[in-house]
Amino acid sequence: MERRSLIKVALGREPADAIVAGGQVVSVHTNEILRADVAIVGSRIAAVGDLPKASCGPQTRIIDAAGLFISPGLIDGHLHYHHTYLDPAEASKLLLRHGITGTADGFYGEAIVGGAEAVRALKQATDKLKIRLIFLAPTSAYLQNRMFGLTPAKAVSIEELHEMLDWEGCYGLDETPFSSVIDKDGGMLGLFEATLAKGKIVTGHVRGADPQQVQAFVAMGGTVDHESVSVADVLARARAGMKVLMRFGSGVPDLPNLISAYTEVGISPRQLALCTDVLLPEAVFEGGVDIAVRKTIAAGIDPVNAIAMGSLNVAEAFRADHDMGSITPGRFADMALLEELGTFKVRKVIFGGEEVVDRGRILFDNKRPSYPAFMTDTVRLARTFRAEDFKVPTNRGDGPVRVRVIGVSKTDLVTSELFETLSVVDGVIQPDPAKDVAMTAMIDRLGKGSGMSVAFIKGFQLKAGAIASTHNAVCENLAIAGTNGADMAFAAGELRRMGGGQIVVRDGKVLAEFRMPILGLFSDQSYEEVLERRREIQAAAESLGCTLNDPLLKLEFSYACAEFPLLRMSEEGLFRTDTKQHLSVVA
Amino acid sequence: MERRSLIKVALGREPADAIVAGGQVVSVHTNEILRADVAIVGSRIAAVGDLPKASCGPQTRIIDAAGLFISPGLIDGHLHYHHTYLDPAEASKLLLRHGITGTADGFYGEAIVGGAEAVRALKQATDKLKIRLIFLAPTSAYLQNRMFGLTPAKAVSIEELHEMLDWEGCYGLDETPFSSVIDKDGGMLGLFEATLAKGKIVTGHVRGADPQQVQAFVAMGGTVDHESVSVADVLARARAGMKVLMRFGSGVPDLPNLISAYTEVGISPRQLALCTDVLLPEAVFEGGVDIAVRKTIAAGIDPVNAIAMGSLNVAEAFRADHDMGSITPGRFADMALLEELGTFKVRKVIFGGEEVVDRGRILFDNKRPSYPAFMTDTVRLARTFRAEDFKVPTNRGDGPVRVRVIGVSKTDLVTSELFETLSVVDGVIQPDPAKDVAMTAMIDRLGKGSGMSVAFIKGFQLKAGAIASTHNAVCENLAIAGTNGADMAFAAGELRRMGGGQIVVRDGKVLAEFRMPILGLFSDQSYEEVLERRREIQAAAESLGCTLNDPLLKLEFSYACAEFPLLRMSEEGLFRTDTKQHLSVVA
Repeated sequence: MERRSLIKVALGREPADAIVAGGQVVSVHTNEILRADVAIVGSRIAAVGDLPKASCGPQTRIIDAAGLFISPGLIDGHLHYHHTYLDPAEASKLLLRHGITGTADGFYGEAIVGGAEAVRALKQATDKLKIRLIFLAPTSAYLQNRMFGLTPAKAVSIEELHEMLDWEGCYGLDETPFSSVIDKDGGMLGLFEATLAKGKIVTGHVRGADPQQVQAFVAMGGTVDHESVSVADVLARARAGMKVLMRFGSGVPDLPNLISAYTEVGISPRQLALCTDVLLPEAVFEGGVDIAVRKTIAAGIDPVNAIAMGSLNVAEAFRADHDMGSITPGRFADMALLEELGTFKVRKVIFGGEEVVDRGRILFDNKRPSYPAFMTDTVRLARTFRAEDFKVPTNRGDGPVRVRVIGVSKTDLVTSELFETLSVVDGVIQPDPAKDVAMTAMIDRLGKGSGMSVAFIKGFQLKAGAIASTHNAVCENLAIAGTNGADMAFAAGELRRMGGGQIVVRDGKVLAEFRMPILGLFSDQSYEEVLERRREIQAAAESLGCTLNDPLLKLEFSYACAEFPLLRMSEEGLFRTDTKQHLSVVA
Repeated sequence: MERRSLIKVALGREPADAIVAGGQVVSVHTNEILRADVAIVGSRIAAVGDLPKASCGPQTRIIDAAGLFISPGLIDGHLHYHHTYLDPAEASKLLLRHGITGTADGFYGEAIVGGAEAVRALKQATDKLKIRLIFLAPTSAYLQNRMFGLTPAKAVSIEELHEMLDWEGCYGLDETPFSSVIDKDGGMLGLFEATLAKGKIVTGHVRGADPQQVQAFVAMGGTVDHESVSVADVLARARAGMKVLMRFGSGVPDLPNLISAYTEVGISPRQLALCTDVLLPEAVFEGGVDIAVRKTIAAGIDPVNAIAMGSLNVAEAFRADHDMGSITPGRFADMALLEELGTFKVRKVIFGGEEVVDRGRILFDNKRPSYPAFMTDTVRLARTFRAEDFKVPTNRGDGPVRVRVIGVSKTDLVTSELFETLSVVDGVIQPDPAKDVAMTAMIDRLGKGSGMSVAFIKGFQLKAGAIASTHNAVCENLAIAGTNGADMAFAAGELRRMGGGQIVVRDGKVLAEFRMPILGLFSDQSYEEVLERRREIQAAAESLGCTLNDPLLKLEFSYACAEFPLLRMSEEGLFRTDTKQHLSVVA
């Protein structure tokens, strides 16, 4: 038994497998820097400090940490692997390079498309990788659409969520939108009670909640949330006893707006932790939650506290601190050896006692797993779509009509409710590229039988063609924006052929395609390939006149995402996420 | 469902059952004092802050907190009910008066005498009281004696400890002596693994461990300990990731020697919490862990942090913080309303939403429970003992002999290994009252068949008679100290008649008796009665010449207590707790 060996090494009765020697340990429990060696047996830490002489034997590997700081490997408190468009095997390699050795994820997107069996396959594959997974049962896969009165995907059932709580390495429930529990039950309160009774954690998606709604969500049992966008949000949550995951990710750079809860208001840092939520492939190449740590230090927080927010505080938030989050005995030997503390400059990374990164070089080969067959070829369209399917008819005659338009933001992932006057030809409302008003459509691609819907969207500046994706948060349908029905129909057909992904088309030709054969949600290629495909997609979109950065991401977040403001699209029409009202195109 | 009502009150859709109005909340999560009202539904808090108007209806009770601070009820991180000699129903009333609304206990003594069924009965009875129980499976009841190579009581089996982990309200394992796991297994590592796999807590009894031994215990999975007696102990544990329960109890006033780990060394307070361990009846009348909070404030710690150490930090150490430890939604409505923060001066106490104490007055009647019959009449002696059973023979002739003597301390509960030269008459070593050397005996009273043993003890200053008890830590046998065999035999017989307790005898007469009919461990009387019996016992012991304060407590701790230094007694003879060596009386 591994722990028996840890004891023997700690007492100097047996030599360690490895010793990280000569460094200074970042003691996140006590907020100190301590000169200490770290003895490792198997995948875990046996002892830290002045080691007994006998802990170093002839076979003991010495990992030189002279002049280096030994930080706990960082843990991203909330990161969706599928939003990297990469297989976790690829994404984790990039994360590791930055000293990130753990992530919390519930695979909600994968669950929506592939159900509990896809989640199980993803979890099993990820558990074999050189990164620690804090698995959380994906409630939003169950609640998705349901909370807006839309047809849900088969996804996971409430019974399956209960079962997942008993999966090894499940720490609780993933981001649960507060409003879906406040107004309905659907078995959620029973699920919360079961989670709490098992000593596990209910995490929230408490976006846009006022202080009373925060109180209500905490009263239900929620203790972790990552949706603060202001200091007031942080204070409302922390004072209610929640651990606040301060976010700094792609499209959600909230951290700088939050950190003064500590630096100015002065609340205890114990309630604060870090996450990214969304990391696009280019972002994950540059770093993940390590960037949040750096931002935190830059905001004036001492580095040990900042590192604690990215390690121990996350582990404690999920009650995983007996296994990870600090350089202490019994925990997994996951650590980042730093050249500088203040910049979190990583020299080496150790995962499970093994050196995995040295000066940015990855020292191992994570083979990308092969997934069960049901996880590919998941674009199930009810029929072949044609140009005429993408018409928005009106019975008000052929005068101009005032229509409701989804407003896409240049800077973030929220949308607005706009109104535009569009012309009508032969009873069909026309898009207006001159006004930057394109058509948008969502098509059921999950075999739900919920059909398709067409509306208008503004912000893409498309002059021609169409862009389309099978990857859209908490929805995972087939989403299209385009200037004409022919290209939109063509795009849908091509995505079916590809088995999912993203595409840019014009005049019946594919300008660029990015295949995501796994559930239509992520690539089976290397990150170098994915970055190349992303550049091609961006360039092709620009050739259509689009000036947005990452228009496919904006498209993705124009659809039915949990509580993200405001006017959103579904295959059953427009609706507002705040009021949950369904709205007609014609105002 | 209660949580559904909490939500409705938090959102102002229904009125609260009660509102604590006009006070200032001690926010232990953020280290702030906040002006806030507290809405209560049933036994839990629904909302804290500026409440929605509608949360106050015509039926809502208003609990006036104007001018008061609203502190979370304190939680004692380690308290043995049976060491109060009181039924938990009595002890909890006294604790409540001081704002203590929760305690952690594993009922190890009750388990040693009565097995798992007694633990279940105690837990069920305590769960009905107006105090929150953090139940921990009593490993020391299983390990007791075993770790010293002595005959164990039937007590609890390792299988029963596994079962207890699944009892509702079990948060993990109670104080496990580190040495018994370091050197042996006996299934303990498997039990630890099972505990960790359930997300529960392994607490330690890491008394006297050097830093390497601390590392070893943490490597096993231990994360909480209450046996620090120096700043170095605190630092070794906190840096290893343990939560340190700083103790201030009867005979164990360690806190003042520990707190400079924070006030001078400056480690993060998150690792520090408070407990009492042992509270004699007089002590529990004066207060419990509230005294530790006061001492902590007196040492220079700000009151909010000190209160956190006695509430939230304890709850977090046991992963009970979703249910208790702070004034936040969803938690039990357990709180102390304070007139002064710096002195923790309690005006009112609320437990489970109900006012239970007002200005020291207890507002309810906890009926003392009736326990199953097997929990009384538990003094099972193998036979009737006579004067000649208490002889210590020697075969070295009738010259004086050098004997090993247990040295009782005036100031604390440790013992020393002393040597004295005693005379021998007819092959029997004689006690020597002039040298303050009395006889001491331990007799199996648990039906183990392990017999009895006699040795010598110094420090009681007995001139005549005997004192005896069935209450002795981690042993719970029949312990006697006396100047002559006749009185010692008489005391044993009287304790059997009484069904256990404490007694002082002289010349075949009972001078004072304190009955403890429940398992021979605690009284079935009111605390007023118990205090009176204690005074009688003390006076009677003084009449025998004894000048010690609480000689029966000193007697109790001269026996086989887990790792407590040093020379100790058992029914199988003398031994040292450090080396676990068994030693002869004749040196």
